[in-house]
Amino acid sequence: MTASRFDVLGIGNAIVDVLAHADDAFLAANAITKGAMTLIDDARAEELYAAMGPAVEISGGSAANTIHGVAAFGGKGAFVGKVRNDQLGQVFAHDIRAAGVQFATPIAEAGAATARCFILVTPDAQRSMSTYLGAAGALTPDDVIEADVADAGVTYLEGYLFDPAPARAAFYKAAKIAHGAGRKVALTLSDSFCVDRYRADFLKLIESEVDILFANEAELKSLYETESFDDALQALGHHCPVAALTRSEHGSVVLWDSEVHVISASPVAKVVDTTGAGDQYAAGFLYGVATGRDAATCGHLGSLAAAEVISHFGARPEADLAALAKSAGLMA
Amino acid sequence: MTASRFDVLGIGNAIVDVLAHADDAFLAANAITKGAMTLIDDARAEELYAAMGPAVEISGGSAANTIHGVAAFGGKGAFVGKVRNDQLGQVFAHDIRAAGVQFATPIAEAGAATARCFILVTPDAQRSMSTYLGAAGALTPDDVIEADVADAGVTYLEGYLFDPAPARAAFYKAAKIAHGAGRKVALTLSDSFCVDRYRADFLKLIESEVDILFANEAELKSLYETESFDDALQALGHHCPVAALTRSEHGSVVLWDSEVHVISASPVAKVVDTTGAGDQYAAGFLYGVATGRDAATCGHLGSLAAAEVISHFGARPEADLAALAKSAGLMA
Repeated sequence: MTASRFDVLGIGNAIVDVLAHADDAFLAANAITKGAMTLIDDARAEELYAAMGPAVEISGGSAANTIHGVAAFGGKGAFVGKVRNDQLGQVFAHDIRAAGVQFATPIAEAGAATARCFILVTPDAQRSMSTYLGAAGALTPDDVIEADVADAGVTYLEGYLFDPAPARAAFYKAAKIAHGAGRKVALTLSDSFCVDRYRADFLKLIESEVDILFANEAELKSLYETESFDDALQALGHHCPVAALTRSEHGSVVLWDSEVHVISASPVAKVVDTTGAGDQYAAGFLYGVATGRDAATCGHLGSLAAAEVISHFGARPEADLAALAKSAGLMA
Repeated sequence: MTASRFDVLGIGNAIVDVLAHADDAFLAANAITKGAMTLIDDARAEELYAAMGPAVEISGGSAANTIHGVAAFGGKGAFVGKVRNDQLGQVFAHDIRAAGVQFATPIAEAGAATARCFILVTPDAQRSMSTYLGAAGALTPDDVIEADVADAGVTYLEGYLFDPAPARAAFYKAAKIAHGAGRKVALTLSDSFCVDRYRADFLKLIESEVDILFANEAELKSLYETESFDDALQALGHHCPVAALTRSEHGSVVLWDSEVHVISASPVAKVVDTTGAGDQYAAGFLYGVATGRDAATCGHLGSLAAAEVISHFGARPEADLAALAKSAGLMA
């Protein structure tokens, strides 16, 4: 790969997470699908917020979390996503820039407020998300800057952005720019319900534009409408040269051209909050790809970053991931 | 004490904390006084925020934290403080109400933004605070509702509110109402630099209106302009019937009419962030006073709550303090 200004450029929803603890009874009483991401409107957001307990605000968004993770490995990251010029938008912009990530998407001066994701963490460390998309849904192809995408080793697309249609057009624009510059395009499926809503569109994008796919077991099975992980794996092999398929505590399976690598999960003393596990796995894997590492090392870097983020509350790494990777012998 | 609608009503700065890790070099480079609370203006707030790393937003404010703690013991709390009608103001209002605390102070529809406190936590778990007071400084005597104060076992005043003058007038109004209704008035000195700025005013309020004083060693010494803790202790005995004097890992000394009790600190496996230690000590102590417990039990409830809050990031309790107190044999 040629030298580039950015290792990874991510395009995704710019969101501030509103994290709180809740029990299963609260999820049931508020009709929240456990483990999933559900889109909610403004009225529902107010209702849910009023019902939930004291919370903590932390910048989030799946691809934004991943790019923050790339930076925590020492990589050069850029993020494209939309916030409103309000206090939470300022929080989002501050946090991602303070992590050393370029965030140059024009901020909306009018329209819906900055996106919020209400994340309820149950005692089993599972997270259930209700997202008010707000300004994040207003991303358009104009927000994709050709010079930035052309100068990023990998452009990483967040599946959640299939919900707002103009953002999907931004994906195709970015993919064309990246491939025109000889770069790679990665996609995460994000959520099995999201895959279910846009299956044909996802398949079309994967077959035509995606070099590296991230999916968990449920998302992959939903994509190919099968109950068999192996059947889905075989089907995917015909569609995408590289794929990282995460399986929670069972680690991940990496497809790498004609090879298949089975990667263990990294040990975790106590799982506190699984929010961001997939995002940080992608951070480690993409940092590995962008810096020319082999399949197994990319997978292990993903496992290491995922293990760090599930050991504490919140979806962004707190540790220096480069230092962790060095002490694990994954980086020199 | 007669039955009351509230165990403790707190009056203080309504603040959202912006918490980040920093090292000592960052404090030095940004001229931040370690361990203290410094007031900053809007321009300085923007400058500091731009310089600091990724942060987490959590509702804070000293007296607000204390009242949240009282609620975590199962007590009935009310809070009086001023936010602006902006996103951080909504966050503050949500969090304190979600903790079961009455928060009925009219929200400012114009003027300065909701207060933010930039809290930098160094690797030694010490916190250094830079506060943009904003809307919190706009509290006036009109915000003190007679019916609420008259119906609270203890009214608790936050020393930081000596900085904005109209709030000091609110203190006197509240103290007169409380005493008129046969209730108690408590005050925390908050910060030694704050005591230094308003020593004469603090002494006047303590001598005329305060039944229960909270102070740490540095604040008490500053109040009486002495380097001797014991000299300060003897002086205080003439001014205030009850006082809880906190001494970090050395526990606390409780003056209770003519008695002196020396209370040990509760053990903590690992001190993560000392933010809120004094606030939660006050929560335990005041909950004890409001529910008619003896001096030593009040002190031990304070130690227990302080130990819980310094074992994690953030200034509000995460655990059920009533359950902790029961398993420690302090509550039935």
